[in-house]
Formats: sequence, C-alpha cells, structure tokens
Amino acid sequence: MRDDIRAVLRGQRIETPSWAYGNSGTRFKVFAQQGVPRDPYEKLADAAQVHAFTGVAPAVALHIPWDRVDDYAGLARYAAGLGVEIGAINSNVFQDDDYRLGSVTNPDPAVRRKALGHLLECVDIMDATGSATLKLWFSDGTNYPGQDDIRARQDRLAEALAAVYARLGDGQRLLLEYKLFEPAFYLTDVPDWGTAYAHCLKLGDKARVVVDTGHHAPGTNIEFIVAFLLREGRLGGFDFNSRFYADDDLMVGAADPFQLFRIMYEVVRGGGLGPHVAFMLDQCHNIEPKIAGQIRSVMNVQEATAKALLVDVGALAAAQAAGDVLGANAVLMDAYDTDVRPLLAEVRAEMGLDPDPMAAYARSGYFEKIRADRVGGTQAGWGA
Amino acid sequence: MRDDIRAVLRGQRIETPSWAYGNSGTRFKVFAQQGVPRDPYEKLADAAQVHAFTGVAPAVALHIPWDRVDDYAGLARYAAGLGVEIGAINSNVFQDDDYRLGSVTNPDPAVRRKALGHLLECVDIMDATGSATLKLWFSDGTNYPGQDDIRARQDRLAEALAAVYARLGDGQRLLLEYKLFEPAFYLTDVPDWGTAYAHCLKLGDKARVVVDTGHHAPGTNIEFIVAFLLREGRLGGFDFNSRFYADDDLMVGAADPFQLFRIMYEVVRGGGLGPHVAFMLDQCHNIEPKIAGQIRSVMNVQEATAKALLVDVGALAAAQAAGDVLGANAVLMDAYDTDVRPLLAEVRAEMGLDPDPMAAYARSGYFEKIRADRVGGTQAGWGA
Amino acid sequence: MRDDIRAVLRGQRIETPSWAYGNSGTRFKVFAQQGVPRDPYEKLADAAQVHAFTGVAPAVALHIPWDRVDDYAGLARYAAGLGVEIGAINSNVFQDDDYRLGSVTNPDPAVRRKALGHLLECVDIMDATGSATLKLWFSDGTNYPGQDDIRARQDRLAEALAAVYARLGDGQRLLLEYKLFEPAFYLTDVPDWGTAYAHCLKLGDKARVVVDTGHHAPGTNIEFIVAFLLREGRLGGFDFNSRFYADDDLMVGAADPFQLFRIMYEVVRGGGLGPHVAFMLDQCHNIEPKIAGQIRSVMNVQEATAKALLVDVGALAAAQAAGDVLGANAVLMDAYDTDVRPLLAEVRAEMGLDPDPMAAYARSGYFEKIRADRVGGTQAGWGA
Amino acid sequence: MRDDIRAVLRGQRIETPSWAYGNSGTRFKVFAQQGVPRDPYEKLADAAQVHAFTGVAPAVALHIPWDRVDDYAGLARYAAGLGVEIGAINSNVFQDDDYRLGSVTNPDPAVRRKALGHLLECVDIMDATGSATLKLWFSDGTNYPGQDDIRARQDRLAEALAAVYARLGDGQRLLLEYKLFEPAFYLTDVPDWGTAYAHCLKLGDKARVVVDTGHHAPGTNIEFIVAFLLREGRLGGFDFNSRFYADDDLMVGAADPFQLFRIMYEVVRGGGLGPHVAFMLDQCHNIEPKIAGQIRSVMNVQEATAKALLVDVGALAAAQAAGDVLGANAVLMDAYDTDVRPLLAEVRAEMGLDPDPMAAYARSGYFEKIRADRVGGTQAGWGA
Repeated sequence: MRDDIRAVLRGQRIETPSWAYGNSGTRFKVFAQQGVPRDPYEKLADAAQVHAFTGVAPAVALHIPWDRVDDYAGLARYAAGLGVEIGAINSNVFQDDDYRLGSVTNPDPAVRRKALGHLLECVDIMDATGSATLKLWFSDGTNYPGQDDIRARQDRLAEALAAVYARLGDGQRLLLEYKLFEPAFYLTDVPDWGTAYAHCLKLGDKARVVVDTGHHAPGTNIEFIVAFLLREGRLGGFDFNSRFYADDDLMVGAADPFQLFRIMYEVVRGGGLGPHVAFMLDQCHNIEPKIAGQIRSVMNVQEATAKALLVDVGALAAAQAAGDVLGANAVLMDAYDTDVRPLLAEVRAEMGLDPDPMAAYARSGYFEKIRADRVGGTQAGWGA
Repeated sequence: MRDDIRAVLRGQRIETPSWAYGNSGTRFKVFAQQGVPRDPYEKLADAAQVHAFTGVAPAVALHIPWDRVDDYAGLARYAAGLGVEIGAINSNVFQDDDYRLGSVTNPDPAVRRKALGHLLECVDIMDATGSATLKLWFSDGTNYPGQDDIRARQDRLAEALAAVYARLGDGQRLLLEYKLFEPAFYLTDVPDWGTAYAHCLKLGDKARVVVDTGHHAPGTNIEFIVAFLLREGRLGGFDFNSRFYADDDLMVGAADPFQLFRIMYEVVRGGGLGPHVAFMLDQCHNIEPKIAGQIRSVMNVQEATAKALLVDVGALAAAQAAGDVLGANAVLMDAYDTDVRPLLAEVRAEMGLDPDPMAAYARSGYFEKIRADRVGGTQAGWGA
Repeated sequence: MRDDIRAVLRGQRIETPSWAYGNSGTRFKVFAQQGVPRDPYEKLADAAQVHAFTGVAPAVALHIPWDRVDDYAGLARYAAGLGVEIGAINSNVFQDDDYRLGSVTNPDPAVRRKALGHLLECVDIMDATGSATLKLWFSDGTNYPGQDDIRARQDRLAEALAAVYARLGDGQRLLLEYKLFEPAFYLTDVPDWGTAYAHCLKLGDKARVVVDTGHHAPGTNIEFIVAFLLREGRLGGFDFNSRFYADDDLMVGAADPFQLFRIMYEVVRGGGLGPHVAFMLDQCHNIEPKIAGQIRSVMNVQEATAKALLVDVGALAAAQAAGDVLGANAVLMDAYDTDVRPLLAEVRAEMGLDPDPMAAYARSGYFEKIRADRVGGTQAGWGA
Repeated sequence: MRDDIRAVLRGQRIETPSWAYGNSGTRFKVFAQQGVPRDPYEKLADAAQVHAFTGVAPAVALHIPWDRVDDYAGLARYAAGLGVEIGAINSNVFQDDDYRLGSVTNPDPAVRRKALGHLLECVDIMDATGSATLKLWFSDGTNYPGQDDIRARQDRLAEALAAVYARLGDGQRLLLEYKLFEPAFYLTDVPDWGTAYAHCLKLGDKARVVVDTGHHAPGTNIEFIVAFLLREGRLGGFDFNSRFYADDDLMVGAADPFQLFRIMYEVVRGGGLGPHVAFMLDQCHNIEPKIAGQIRSVMNVQEATAKALLVDVGALAAAQAAGDVLGANAVLMDAYDTDVRPLLAEVRAEMGLDPDPMAAYARSGYFEKIRADRVGGTQAGWGA
C-alpha cells in the first residue's frame, strides 16, 4: 500500500497564487518585505522556487489586473521556461473606486457592464495563456440593512454569471467562490456554498464551487461541504489557507492541522484527488517570508494528504458498519497521529528532491539574491 | 396604506406547536410547571387560548409520537370544536434508544426501516387530520470524526426522503429542516440550508426548506437565506424562536428584534406572506409561563410584520437605485423605529379582540383554572 | 420624569474621533471620498459640524501620529474656536515597519523603547492640549503558535504600562482597550476585558478599561461586561460602533440597536452616565458619507440613551423581585419599543437645534462646500 | 532529556469525574447504556479501571448530591481499597426546582440560603473524605433581558462566595468555574475567566479559577487564558473535554488535538504541571462506552503532554528572540508532529502497565462483567 501512496504523493499538484509573493497585510498596515517581486515575471520566478523544492507546485494562479501584461502568451512561455505553468485566472472586481457599492451586483448598470467586461477579459487571458480555469470571487455586498435589494442583487449576479458562462470555451470552466463576510459587513451576495451551488446548477456542468477554507462561519464543518459537493459532482477546487478567527489567510494547516486532515480525508474518500479538483493556496504572508511560507504550506498540504491516504479504509468501514464509535474514530486518529514526515522525505528522494525543502531553500541563497537584486521599482502587493 | 396594512395583519396566520405547552428544559434540568397539559387534548385547549386572545394563531402543530392518539380524525374534530385546526405534523425519530447512531442515516438498515416507517405513519396522520404539511427534522449526525461515513449517510438520507416524498398525496407537502448542530456534535447530516435545498430540488416541487431561526452558525445572515429561498420558490416555512448563543429556543424576537424585523421585511419583499409559507413557532418555555410566553411570541411576530409592512418601498427603492447608503438605511430604520403597538391595538379592536392580549389572558383566569384542574396524571414534556 | 430625562439628554456628551472624517476601508480597498480633510484642522472643522447639529458632540479624539502638528496648544485653541475641544489622545504603535512583530511586547528591546517613547509623547500632547485621557490600544500579538512567548509578552506589556502610568499627571488617566483579534491572527496580547482589567488593577486607580463594542467574540454579552466594570469602578469609556461579524466598525446601533439599548441601560443602572465614563465613537465610514454617518451614530446613541432612561425602574425591580420573568422582560421591552424620536426632537428644540439633525446638515451646504474647497493635497486616511 | 520526560509522564495525575460513568445525553435524549453504575461505589469501581490501565488517573471527582452517601469517610476508604482516592467535590445547585431562577444569585433570599447550605455541606464532605478541592460551577443566569438585575446578582454571588471561602479549612481551596452560556441563555453570572478571576482576587489566595475547555466563545484563545492565569498564580485546574460547537463535552482532544497540545505547552511553560493545578476530565459519553471513553481521554491528555514536553525550548527561545516567525513556529510544530505513542508505550512499560490501555481494557472482560452483573436498580445519570 505504501507504494501506491507514494505514487499518489509524487503526482500531487498544488497551485500557488502569484499574489502571495507580493506584499500583503491588514487594513491597519502592510509591512513591506525585502526582495518582493515588482512584476508578474518576478512572481513567477518565485513560484518556480516553490516548485523546485517541493516538486508538487507546478502551476501559478494569476490575478487580473495585478498580473496584467501586454503579452499573455509570452507570460505563459516565460512560465514554461521556469518549469511552471499558468493556473487559474482570478478576476478582480473590487479595487476600482467604481466598485464601492458592488461590481456585478451594483445598482448602477454602467458599473455592472464594466465589471462584466473585466470578467470577459479574464476569459480572453485564459485563451491566451492556456488556462482552463476562471476563478470568480465577488466582494459584492452591502454594509447596512436596506442599503440595497437582496433579491435584485441575485438577479444581477445571475445575469453576469450567465454571460461569462456563455463565453467559456471547450475545456474551460468557471469556479465560483463564496465567503461569509469581508469586505461587505452586512450582506455578502455569495455568502455560503449553498448560494454558489445554486448558481452553478443553473449555469451548467462547467460551473463548480470553490471552497476557501477561511470563508466560513465559526463552527462550520468544512469537510461536510467537501463531501457533499463531491457527491454532487460540483466541487471545483480549494483555496487553502487557515484561520483562528475570520478570514485570517494564515499558512495552510497552521491553525487547525486536524481540520486540514479531515478535509483531505473527504477529498480522498470522494475521489477528489484528481485534476478535476484544483488545489490552490490563497494566503497572505503579512509578517513571514513569502517563498518560505508557501513552501511550508505546500508541505502541510502534503502531510495532510499523506495522513489521509494512510487511513485504513477497510478497518474504518468495518467499525462504522458495526456502530463502533470509539473504534471508528480510533482508525481515523491512527492515521492522523502518524508522523508522515519520513514518508514524505522518501517521496521527495524518489523525485530527486532534497528531503527537507525548507532547509534546501534556505541554503539555496535565492532569498539573498532577490533581496540584493530587487532594489528600486514598485513592489507588488494587493492592489499593485 | 394603513388600511391595507391592517387588512394584512388581520389575516396573518401563525401556528403554535403543541410541545410548547408541555414542560421543557435543558440537559441540566427540566423545571416542571403547574397546570401543564397531560395529553394532546389539553395541549389543544391551551393553544386555543393563544388564538382566542391574538386572533392570528388558528393552527396547532403536532409532534408524533408525543401527540399520539387512537383517533386522529377525532383529534382534528376536537380541535375544530376549540376553534383551531391541526397544522404541521412533526416527525420524531430521535427519542428511541434505537436512534443512538441516527435514524434514516443510521448504519443499521433495520433502524433505517423503523425510522422510515415512522415517517410514513406521519403521512397517515396527515391524511387522518387533514394536515397538509409534514415537517422533517433529523437529529442525525455523528459526534466523532470517522464515526460514520459522511457520504453514505447522504445516500441513506436521500433514499428515505424519496420514499416519504413518493407517499405524499395531492395537496400535501414536505418541509425539510436544517440545523447546524445539537444533538450531534461533530457532523449533522442536514446542517445548513444548502443541504436541505439540494435534497428538496431532487425530490420535486412538493419539497421545501424550513428555516428555524435558531439553527444557524454565529453571524449567519438569515434574511439572506429567506430572500434566496423565496426567489427560488423553495421557502416552505419558519420555525420561529430566538437565541443569543446556540439553539436557545427563546421567545420569538426576544434576543434580536431587529433581526426578526429584517426577516419579516424579506418575507414581505419576496411575496412570502401567504399560505404557501408556514409561520410556525418553535420555542421552549423553560422558565417562563407557557401560554403567556406563546402569546408574547405571537405578538412579537405581529409587531415585526407590522413594521415590515410600514417600510416605504418607493422611497427605499429610490434611495437604493441612487446608491444613497445612509438614505436607504434610514428608510428601513424609520419603519423599525416606529412604535406599532397602537396600530396593532387598532387591528385587534377591529377583530373584536382586547387590544392587550397579555393583560386579557391574565385577567381571564384560565391559568388559575388549569393549575387547579390539572392535578395528577403525567405532565406532557419533551419525550412525553 | 420626562423633565429629568430631557435634562440628562441635553447634557449628554459624545466624543467623535478625528480619524472618522478621513478615508477608511478594508484590506481590500480604501474608497476615497470627496471633501475629505487633508489635515487635523479640517478634521476638527468637520467634527464641529457634528456638534453644531446634534449639540452633544463637543469633543474630538485625536490619533497620533495621524494628527501630529507642530503646535498642539494651537490646535486646542483652534478647536475651541470651532466650539469643540480635544478629547482623548489615541496612541498608534502599529503603523511603522518596526512594529511588524509588535510594539511594547516586541521581542526586540529597541522597538519596545521606541513604542514607549511614542506613548510618552502622547502624554506630552495631553499636557499641551489639556486632554485628560490617554487611550491605549495595542495591536500587539502573533500570527502563529510558537511565534513568541505569551507570558514574556505580558511581562513586557506590564513594564510599558507601568512606565506610562508613572508619567500621568494629576487629572490624567489611562484607558486600556482590548480586542479579540485583528490585526493579530493567533494571539492578541490584550484580547479581552479580563486582561485589561487585571493590568489596570496593578497600575492603580487612574487606569480604566475601555469597551469597544466591536471587539468581542461572537455571543459575548457586552452589557454584562459594562455592568461588571461599573460595579468595580473600572469602566473608563466606550468606543462605540457596531458589527454583524468581526470588528466591522459600522455606524453605532446599525447592526443591533437592541444591544446598544441594553448597554445603555446598564450604563444608566450603574451610574455610568457621567464624566468619568467617556462615550466615544470609533467607526469606519468605508462607503457612506463621513459627517452624516457620524451624525447618525450620535443620534443612535441618543435614542438608545433615551430608551434606557425611560425604563420604569420601579416596575422593573418589582417584577424582578417577584421572579416574574415575562413581566420583568416586558418592562424593559416597553421602553425599547417606544419611539423616542419625538422626545429627542423636543430636546433638540430646547437646545435651540433643528429637531432633525440629518436634514439640517444636508440643507446646510457644508458638504457641497468642502467638496468644492478641498481639492488637491493629500486626503487624510488611516495611516495618513 | 527523554529520561526526564518519561519521569514527568509517569508522575502525571489526571482526575476522572464520577458522573462520566453514568448515563448522560442532550436535552433531546439520554441514551441508556448497559453496565452503568447504580451508586457511587460502582462509579468508583469503574474509575479504578481507568487508573488500573493508564496508571495516571488515581483520583475521582464527586458530584453532590449525585454521589450522596451516608458515610463519606467510608466512601473514601472504599476508594482507597480500589487504589484510587477522592478528588474534587463538585457542588450542584442547579437541579432542584427551587433553582429555576438561580441558586446563589436567585432574587429569593430563601433559595440563596438553601444553595449556600448546600455549598457548605460540600465542605463538610471535603472534611470527611479528605478532599482538598471544592469546585464551584454555577448555572446561574437569566434567559431574558430585564429578567433580573445583573449587578445585584453579582452582589449576591460575592456574598455566597465569601461565606464559603470563610468555611474552608487549612489545605482546602475553592475553584471557581466560568461558562459562556447554557443552561442560561441570555446572562450567565460567571460567563468568563475575567469574572471568575475578579471574584477570586477578592476572596483570597485559596480561590483559583478553573478552566473548562468547552466553556468559551468561538475563537477564544484558551492557551492565552492558561498562560495568563499561571502568570497571576490563579490557575486552579482544568475541566478537560472538547467541542466543535458549544459545550459539547466530547472526549478530550477529539475535536482539536492541536489546541490541547497548545494548552499543555503553556501549562509546561508556566510551571503548571504540578499538584497545584488539578487536571480533571469533564465529559459526557452520550453515545460511546464510558470507561473506554475515559481511557481514551486520559491517553489523549498524555499524548498532548508528551508533545508539550518534547518542545525544544532552547531552539524555540532562540527563534523567538530572533523574530524568526517561521522558525519559531516550526520548532513548536516539530514537537506536535512527532508520534509520541511509542514514547508513551515505553512509559507504560516502565510503570508495569500494558503499553496499549484500550486493548488491555477490552481484553480484561470488565465491561462484560458489569454488563452482566449490573441488572436492576436505577442507573446513575445526570440528576440521579
């Protein structure tokens, strides 16, 4: 069995986000770091480091307009030259002054048209880069009861989604993200998986729900949502990160590694460990180094995956069928309590990698190099 | 406009639950009260008092087996004699020892068959009593990760729901309730509106979602769910109560009257103030008198409804269209800040009722009478 | 009684924050508005408008370094010329790059010295402006378990607080604020009232706790904290705002007017409606007009206060003593359900004000004037 | 170092609660189990099994009146004969009808006197059994705003605590527990650690705070509270259990093993691993076998303790001092990611125990024996 597990782990594919390499922060302060990329090319170079040391991060998600370039096909070729490829295209309809009251759900039709235009531009970029995935997150919502009409906003949302969906080509798909709150503080137009799911159902089979692990109300059982969406054939992917409170965007697994394991167990259980589900990271390195932080997150996903694969499914099914509460729980916990770091070290050795990616990256001198080289220019960040 | 509003308020219909008249409590203690009914007939008599003093509570929901009788048609006639009618039939598949690991999702097929049998019995009771509504709440879930298979439990749930749905007659419908947690403490099989909605979609048009206002995660925007389900044509009704923490089952509006108003506003906005949406109370009077507590809850729903009807929809729409955040919020708040008690006093006078139902009930001597009469026997309560 | 209530309402004193007049936003976007102040003098001018139309907002809190000027005494005189005065001095030890890992709890002693220096500078500014109140909020904390030593950080915090406390002059006091989370996402060094209270106890009688109504975990009973701190003589004041989710900083009372009423009831009950408790607003007008938003918040505090004053304390005490659950609740709700807007209109008339401050401000042309005048320069905002 | 760690683990002392061996459940249903004790002697016998197989559970907490016997000294001798001793005495002032509106904070002085009498009886039982610890949890609170006076209830609470404190003998101490909510649904009189701490401060050095890990608001950083109370010298002990939602009372570590580890790390860090801090379990085995459930919980506490002891404190301190966010976190996670089950197996072997307590207990035939023997009589449970 260990051979099979190692094979699965070697083939895992985790996508890192271009924006994680730039500066980020909270509303109170963005702490600038040294060596931060100034343009999408430098972001790709950093992402390529994460892949170089982990071997399982071959794709990089873009964020438009933050990663706007003149020649997207050229950008994709540049990525290929670095050993990575372009992953999901993320739209951004929340950082223009026009979007103060929403984008596709804005009461003003002109703003809605502008927002839709941007979404369609993102599909153009998919065409140009070969990306198969459009990821849509809408910050749309309201801050005060009465501010706008909840239902009318759903109508506007449905209209925009339909227009985008119609534009998708063969082999392209749309992932719709949900989020409980922030930046909207009373109503969010897509606040939960049910809303995203209902819209996807209406759109068609190319529309799927994406689960950001930080976007739920306290107490939400996220692995249930994962299991349910997989059963429905509607899980499109993950935005992985972790949180203790709200959408803290900490490194994956940092806040609740057991939850991450439970999620990965349901992924494995539901046949989700394949290319039809995108495993993306979406985190903010506010105070920690960015590339190292991404490597750590990738490793945390790997560890949770390894543990999930180690669950003795036969023993688990038998205990469950027998109604053996403690026994069934113990089977799951046995896998979780296992130290899988030696197993992953083996997997990395098989892949020709250093068994300790963090140490290898630290030794590589890459950070010292970018810190020295990337002087001047404007550092990339949220909004840049 | 006030005439129209008064007419709507006179025609409002709120259903009270038979179990609210019996003893209830927490896991720590059930505090027995005086005068509590000993059988379903006495519960109906108490419910009839709520209707007598408010004029808008003509239906009484039953809970099977708590309200099991030999002659359901006779029970319905008895209710009619009291001026009320039988409302929703609530199934109970959580209080037999067999249901320790679930009812319709239990890993044991024999338990599932038993549970399904009970659900079908409830439809028989609908036939006998003339009730049009089957309300299904499942406590099914697990307490520990690994205890049972999340996905298999969904399959079992879908199978049971399909069997019940197939049994429904013309004019009968099924309402599926969801709940975040309790009594299950890790997984609840129907934890949120999305799950209930997805199952209802598969079942067909006679299946609707019921919203218990106490069954959500902290921070959930309940009025959004109401608006969304109305837009989809899938809102079946409410179990009204209120809470500060979890599923506290306090009197309606006691914890957050502004939330109740926002919910009722979306009901009005979405055309939900009609017979297709059931307005049911579901609360536990642990420490307060039961009949008076119900009257107060009915009045709180009335007040929230009156305020919702008072919203100046023209001014609201204009402010919303103009993107006037403060103005639109102010229109809504103007209605909320209005003291509608005089308006409701007028409505009651028009209906031939005392303008102050609480005082009128207190003066009636009914409580003193049941306290004296209902001596001996076994008091009704949760589980009795 | 109404005479007494009107007198109290006329004498109410609510402090507005200078930063509320500048631009603010979320981590995703700061939406710039027109007419926003470019310096502390223009902020004071805007704050003076709020006082001019409400009559109860005579003080303006400053935030250092956002409101740094060369001549603080001159700034105070400028305020006096506008009919307002300088309120609390708010320190800011969270927006320099040095504070990435904390300010007074930073593991680096040099950073701690810098932070302490800033706090002492704030007391200098109190001396210069005549402000009696130093308000301390520390964003200090960590994002990851293990990142720093929880206990050592408390030692460092205690040391800094003691140094500041020792610097306070006669008639000056220190208010310590707490906050559950944000911007720190794992540990916040002063996360709850208990922590703030314990530090204040050690410092002495000039140290008090300040309650920001948006800084609590979901479900926290804030009015209990208010009642408890008043009983202990340790409530220093409020930062009023409201929230549905986290620290949303919405207009006061916008999210839960009933909660605001309950808080104000405990203030009245505990003798907190005096100069020893500071009633400050702290909110972010991300999408709504700033001056009008402040006026609305001031009015909401007034309405909650008026309702709290209307509670029939004799009837309430009698019902409480009798164990009459419904009766006691009804007494409180009677006050809450009362429409106090006419009463406040009277109060304003008595004060020589327009009974409708929102309308009067809108008619005044002030906004149109600043929109036209304040062209060029750098708009004030968080961090500016 | 491993030798030291093993020594600490051999000397660990975890107290199990007598009530965990009886039936328990939710407000919806108590599922009776087979072999459940009928009296305190049988509970002690079951608790002795937990100690026999784990070697670290030598004390058993009692709950009065559930464990009321005629001869407490005899009960203590009986325990000694089983190889265990009497731990904390837990008062119960929540299950008489008199306590509907509270016990020591009840508006009725007669009820307060009765409650105080019970608390003093508990000290008598401490004298008789040799128990050094009185554990006080008050369910006191209210369900509705206005129901009672928040501040007056604090006065009554303080009065009762002072009377109990005055009765404590040398070597006896009082632990005050707090809880966010349940069974009270609006106000709880001791809702948080700050309230318990403030009362303990006033009482004196024999009064300490006890932390039930399930009694906090969502998002609360419990290890911070532990660290803070240890720094203040006011941590009296733990009621360990775990939860996903509210006070679910699941097996320790079942919901969030990482949190349990973080808590135990702060215990170790703060010098709390000694006899001055009581490590008690307080959980409800609603659906799982009780003795096996306790054994599992004890093992989970042991594993978390072992991991906490494995933290490389030198490396951690160095990384923290250097501001190395990722490095410091990694040191902590290295310990957490270690599989400590082999280490604990060694420890058990050193203690002459089976390395696998769960399997050894299952093989022992004890459960089969009590299932056969304990027929008839009234099963112990909450309230019995």
